[in-house]
Amino acid sequence: MSRSGRLSSLMGDLDAVIIANGTEPFLDSTFWYLTEQMSGSFEGSIAMVHKDGTLDVIVSQLEEEIARSGTGELHVYKTGQEYKDILTELLKDCKKVGVNSGSIPYSAIRMLRKVREDLEFEDASGIVSETVNVKDGKEVACIRKACEITSKVANELPSMISEGVSEKEVASEMDIRMRRYGGTGNAFDTIAAFGKYSAEPHHMPCDYRLKKGDTALFDFGAKYDRYCADLTRTIFLDDPGDTMRRVYDIVLKAQQAGIDAIRPGVNAEAVDAAAREVIDSTEFKGRFIHSFGHGIGMDVHQEIHVSPRSKHVLKEGNIISAEPGIYVPGVGGVRIEDTILVTKDGCERLTSFDHSFTISR
Amino acid sequence: MSRSGRLSSLMGDLDAVIIANGTEPFLDSTFWYLTEQMSGSFEGSIAMVHKDGTLDVIVSQLEEEIARSGTGELHVYKTGQEYKDILTELLKDCKKVGVNSGSIPYSAIRMLRKVREDLEFEDASGIVSETVNVKDGKEVACIRKACEITSKVANELPSMISEGVSEKEVASEMDIRMRRYGGTGNAFDTIAAFGKYSAEPHHMPCDYRLKKGDTALFDFGAKYDRYCADLTRTIFLDDPGDTMRRVYDIVLKAQQAGIDAIRPGVNAEAVDAAAREVIDSTEFKGRFIHSFGHGIGMDVHQEIHVSPRSKHVLKEGNIISAEPGIYVPGVGGVRIEDTILVTKDGCERLTSFDHSFTISR
Repeated sequence: MSRSGRLSSLMGDLDAVIIANGTEPFLDSTFWYLTEQMSGSFEGSIAMVHKDGTLDVIVSQLEEEIARSGTGELHVYKTGQEYKDILTELLKDCKKVGVNSGSIPYSAIRMLRKVREDLEFEDASGIVSETVNVKDGKEVACIRKACEITSKVANELPSMISEGVSEKEVASEMDIRMRRYGGTGNAFDTIAAFGKYSAEPHHMPCDYRLKKGDTALFDFGAKYDRYCADLTRTIFLDDPGDTMRRVYDIVLKAQQAGIDAIRPGVNAEAVDAAAREVIDSTEFKGRFIHSFGHGIGMDVHQEIHVSPRSKHVLKEGNIISAEPGIYVPGVGGVRIEDTILVTKDGCERLTSFDHSFTISR
Repeated sequence: MSRSGRLSSLMGDLDAVIIANGTEPFLDSTFWYLTEQMSGSFEGSIAMVHKDGTLDVIVSQLEEEIARSGTGELHVYKTGQEYKDILTELLKDCKKVGVNSGSIPYSAIRMLRKVREDLEFEDASGIVSETVNVKDGKEVACIRKACEITSKVANELPSMISEGVSEKEVASEMDIRMRRYGGTGNAFDTIAAFGKYSAEPHHMPCDYRLKKGDTALFDFGAKYDRYCADLTRTIFLDDPGDTMRRVYDIVLKAQQAGIDAIRPGVNAEAVDAAAREVIDSTEFKGRFIHSFGHGIGMDVHQEIHVSPRSKHVLKEGNIISAEPGIYVPGVGGVRIEDTILVTKDGCERLTSFDHSFTISR
């Protein structure tokens, strides 16, 4: 079944689902998912899925050439008036319209209301997620490739750090290597966090220079043909001491416990719990301050929450991160993360790097 | 005056302006602008500017450490309930609230409505743009640095291409060099478009290999501390023939005519017209199928339209692109683009590369 066909089968009483791009960076990857092509910027473009599974694609003249390589019936506008005319025509039998509410900008809602005052908007993010969360073979192949590139750099990390090197310098070199090994971009801004900064889960590389005994945490991912990898490796320059050794050991066990719980039919909440239990049964209870994982696809954060209150039931073809961490403010943090494919009877790590406690000297 | 103070001075009868982040990539750069710090991911975070110019910042526990380095009064939530409680308190005297409608996801509007049913949302994107469009010295310095890095790569392009090299290969090497020269990321996905693909303004690098006589168009920009550069250089491998020579000559003249028109007080429409006239007075009339330029800042596309129907009046401190192009479908396209700062009595090119017709052999 086509991708738009799969989405339409979940549409219930909706007359259509509208995926609307804003301007860069407010672009919905669902647009590329549905149109099945890799190129273009498609600011202001719209993909519209109908009850019967057909797809209409509205793009500006600027994207016309590129849009021809994708699926769906193409409508090209040159002026704002033409844009509205096309929408008026396509919406003429629609009343209840689903939108991807986490990604559609409010301006698009206002614009659609101007075209058809009586449109009712429903949140369709759930059915969009349900559709994009089950990856097909082509998608898995892209993510696998992105993970290979990322893993190669992860394995080189111990040789990339030394006393006095700055977070920014290592992050830059990591990005360079991901590009060199075939990555088509970054899945997100590379995190390199040394010493106490490793206790900040979303730290951005600064000029801090690595010291002996420091933790060095790296969270990064390549993109390959729009698809993301997500990996975190934590290593140490010289011996970090007993506390960080113990923290590392616990996080590694927690990750394994979570991964062991991953298989189709399992509630994501149980996966998070399996890992959280390991950490919360130690003196670091409460220091695992985020979810165990999230969905990964064309966006590095997709709508699967592997978290304490998640209602998501894992399905074959889901791709999620497995990333427990322990953060000790002012001291340091350890996070270990793989990208995981849910398979027919369990799961497979798509990332591959040395998970053992590693000291670089 | 503080940045939030400048925004509040434009608020009129609004009780507050709310800047709300979704999840990656739906993050509003205005959040970083207002909080004046560089780091963090800040998914789901909110910045709220009040009538008196004060700023409240709502972040999850995950971002607490990082958020402390920024301005504004910090509110940290651990649970969804705490998030709502903080918002309820901060919104208690608000009725009419401005939002950045091009970037706030519809889900945030729905969430705010749940917190306070009677909130009225107004589009505040105009006053947000008016605020962020006038760059201060710190911002100009960052963009200048991003432009220097980008220009260095632009000047190296003729030596980077040769017969048989693919678009992807050159794009990758460009990204590597921008990182090596100090860029902290890409302002957007690098465009390398050869031969007929150069006629597609938003072409994404593919496996096409460069042939003698081909046009080679490169549109790219480094980021430096979150700020963007934007530059396009078009060169040729061996002689492209008379048509492309003439196209290049016309685009270069059009760009100069546009740049000559840039100064404070001038309507952006007039700048676009100055360039468009040059092209439309030739046999390539109608082949300049996009705007002359756009605002540049923390986003590579900011809300200044230098286009035929623009109402924007240029101000000192605006930073815009100057990028006319001529596209001949199936044959090739030429675009020449600089990043331009509007100065007190004219403008300054922040990018710098050889603009003359260049053949690489």
